[in-house]
Amino acid sequence: MDQAQIFVHEDEVRDNEVDIQGIVNNANYFIYMAHARHKHLKQLGVDFSEFHRSGYDLLLVRSEIDFKSSLRDGDQYLVTSKIEPLGRIRIVFAHEVIRKADNKIVVAAQNIGTCVATATGRPCFPDSLKKSFGFAS
Amino acid sequence: MDQAQIFVHEDEVRDNEVDIQGIVNNANYFIYMAHARHKHLKQLGVDFSEFHRSGYDLLLVRSEIDFKSSLRDGDQYLVTSKIEPLGRIRIVFAHEVIRKADNKIVVAAQNIGTCVATATGRPCFPDSLKKSFGFAS
Amino acid sequence: MDQAQIFVHEDEVRDNEVDIQGIVNNANYFIYMAHARHKHLKQLGVDFSEFHRSGYDLLLVRSEIDFKSSLRDGDQYLVTSKIEPLGRIRIVFAHEVIRKADNKIVVAAQNIGTCVATATGRPCFPDSLKKSFGFAS
Amino acid sequence: MDQAQIFVHEDEVRDNEVDIQGIVNNANYFIYMAHARHKHLKQLGVDFSEFHRSGYDLLLVRSEIDFKSSLRDGDQYLVTSKIEPLGRIRIVFAHEVIRKADNKIVVAAQNIGTCVATATGRPCFPDSLKKSFGFAS
Repeated sequence: MDQAQIFVHEDEVRDNEVDIQGIVNNANYFIYMAHARHKHLKQLGVDFSEFHRSGYDLLLVRSEIDFKSSLRDGDQYLVTSKIEPLGRIRIVFAHEVIRKADNKIVVAAQNIGTCVATATGRPCFPDSLKKSFGFAS
Repeated sequence: MDQAQIFVHEDEVRDNEVDIQGIVNNANYFIYMAHARHKHLKQLGVDFSEFHRSGYDLLLVRSEIDFKSSLRDGDQYLVTSKIEPLGRIRIVFAHEVIRKADNKIVVAAQNIGTCVATATGRPCFPDSLKKSFGFAS
Repeated sequence: MDQAQIFVHEDEVRDNEVDIQGIVNNANYFIYMAHARHKHLKQLGVDFSEFHRSGYDLLLVRSEIDFKSSLRDGDQYLVTSKIEPLGRIRIVFAHEVIRKADNKIVVAAQNIGTCVATATGRPCFPDSLKKSFGFAS
Repeated sequence: MDQAQIFVHEDEVRDNEVDIQGIVNNANYFIYMAHARHKHLKQLGVDFSEFHRSGYDLLLVRSEIDFKSSLRDGDQYLVTSKIEPLGRIRIVFAHEVIRKADNKIVVAAQNIGTCVATATGRPCFPDSLKKSFGFAS
């Protein structure tokens, strides 16, 4: 893939995602990024649930997340998603959560994923998936 | 601190935490670890909510999480929590999520935190907190 | 209030909200409705968090929810919100969750709320709130 | 069923379940009750996920929830669960969430459920299920 395509999802903080500190609870950034990632995958023709039903699962094996600032109740935000190959059987999903009001990067993360066959749990990267991601086979 | 004290919280997967793949959604490990961390802090005399009300917030600045295996519906698990100083104003919270049935480490994480004054957002590590954590002042 | 004003929020199911049955876990409809309600309140000039900080809390005292159908992963939905007075110190928030693909009502709910002073926990319906809701004082 | 058997689950509030008001967000009571209900079902030999995999789903069709008080961060609570038949194809799951410190009922709910065949979505109450619940066939 010559140029990593960037997918952008726009959303807003829900009050139940804010904790007693008045800021978004960290676990929710994880959920925001997963939602953007799944939408990105879908745009590339990979429906997370369909993919599961077809016998494969996309799984994260590692996440590195930098919490740089915090979203608060009512904040609008963008989540970016970028997919890149990592060796032959891994993928990097890079995400940023950006506060819309000031374009500040609130959270930046590298999520490393792989594909496994649901039945065996073994790594397995179907050509169709490589093609969807624009990776050379 | 001569010996890092290990805190252990025991719990069980709730069905709403399991996704269509039949495994615990990753965001929940984050929640499991936060709960164990807050209980650990409380045991050391630091109540997360009280601490907020007294004008300080403990915040994570970085998380590194390795997803090694998966919990499923009905699984019992342990979450370990260990606190260590990192330089003068940072703390490492190390956690493992362990499946009780076979003692397998499902998730291992290093979470780097800091303490800020709520009003200013600036790093601030009160002596009382160092004392609670058993760090040399 | 002569005519109940209807507020509509549009959103989409997140994969983490779907359970092993492949359908949205019921607790999420509660979250969807709360988010629409809070946005509706905000449009009327009542910010849930600001309101808390000003010494008052809006609380639900009863929910009656009919689950008529289910949303699935990827579904787009609308949540409607309608506010009506109920006696002198109560409010009814009526919501419907509607699947966009076929306009089917998935969930319908009546949520009865009241306003309390945070410090005392006692019911308390400030005139400013009545005015925001368009209720006769 | 001569005597409704009461199942009790004990747990504690997680900090991420508390909102900016310092109290447990209502959606979480729903989750608490579902967890107690699923554990109750399991004790009766009905594993929610296994049951799904065997071709049936237990679904709620209506919830009536009274919010009488609030749990706060750190609170211990009990959730009771009672199952009773309602006509020939419906079940009532009655739950109470009770604060352990003072035995106060925080939330009381009646949840009406039914059983459907996953493939058709049609109501279907297998004899094995009636037997598990102790209902006369």
